[in-house]
Amino acid sequence: MTGTGVFLSFEGIDGSGKSTQARRLAAHLRDQGREVVLTREPGGSPGAEEIRRLVLEGDAERWSAETELLLFTAARRDHLERLIQPALDRGAVVICDRFADSTRVYQGVARADLLGLVNTLHAQVIGVDPDRTFLIDMDPEAALTRALGRQAGEDRFESFGVGLQEKLRAGFLALAERAPERFRVIDGNRSEDAVAADVIAALP
Amino acid sequence: MTGTGVFLSFEGIDGSGKSTQARRLAAHLRDQGREVVLTREPGGSPGAEEIRRLVLEGDAERWSAETELLLFTAARRDHLERLIQPALDRGAVVICDRFADSTRVYQGVARADLLGLVNTLHAQVIGVDPDRTFLIDMDPEAALTRALGRQAGEDRFESFGVGLQEKLRAGFLALAERAPERFRVIDGNRSEDAVAADVIAALP
Repeated sequence: MTGTGVFLSFEGIDGSGKSTQARRLAAHLRDQGREVVLTREPGGSPGAEEIRRLVLEGDAERWSAETELLLFTAARRDHLERLIQPALDRGAVVICDRFADSTRVYQGVARADLLGLVNTLHAQVIGVDPDRTFLIDMDPEAALTRALGRQAGEDRFESFGVGLQEKLRAGFLALAERAPERFRVIDGNRSEDAVAADVIAALP
Repeated sequence: MTGTGVFLSFEGIDGSGKSTQARRLAAHLRDQGREVVLTREPGGSPGAEEIRRLVLEGDAERWSAETELLLFTAARRDHLERLIQPALDRGAVVICDRFADSTRVYQGVARADLLGLVNTLHAQVIGVDPDRTFLIDMDPEAALTRALGRQAGEDRFESFGVGLQEKLRAGFLALAERAPERFRVIDGNRSEDAVAADVIAALP
């Protein structure tokens, strides 16, 4: 179902540098003459971006976890149909900044009782996983510092929650352990160049 | 799960008079001193109405059947959580103009291959059916005449499709046959008063 192209995803906690690495990999592959489609979730196609806005604007309490999961799955389906699958079918490399693993990990931490529904929805309406997933693994406190910027005081730290980031990191590592053929865990606690070199070495 | 209230739905093809009958029943029950919440789908709660707009505006080809089904299920979940279930919990009568049976019938006609997904989504994220469903059954040609208004010429008829209406009617009747304890099939080819009297006589 992934056509003749290659489907790559980057996963990791906020501030892990995955978006930077996704861009660097895209530039590297373009330099080699490949067609690269660099995209992100939630969103990625015009319809999915509209759903993203609908979910993220307004109060945090506006949608329940169940409704939000259905909306994000609708967005992923649109993204897959309109952008990812056509690109793979014509032989392009698709690089996606977050994909279904983020849903699995965030729901696993926030609402573990919904994991059965997460898996059912993925199997029945998405049905595709990347050929390779780069998990940029990073110390949660350092990632949080990076994500929030240096000006952030300690108060903001606590409201953001290093504890939450630690749980999310553990969730990503657990997924990687269960699918070692697909995941490559890359140590993000290093220079951009060092991380980028490891990503290239781990291409499928 | 339906609390102490009563959950009623009206189903049928366009022009069958179900919206008129839903309003008449609401007025009748209010006259008897009941709290009545009269609502409709798709939509019915502020969030669900926003999803409805997102689905129905723009090109018909804008969303695939799968994406649309996920969006409408998200809308139904929001409608259920925010309006229907709270009303039932406080003992109100909820009257809904279209509910899950419309999804079953329209998808059954348009994309029968999606019926498994329709049923899975209903079981896992909705989980509620009305206590009673009034199917206002009507001759498709007469219903279409009513829906389109008397000024409509024959051309418009054909583009709307009596054939489609016939299939939808058959779909509703088949559902009613499979759930006779919940459905009451009411002959809509009569005066509003006669239909309304039958609806009241068929209250649970």
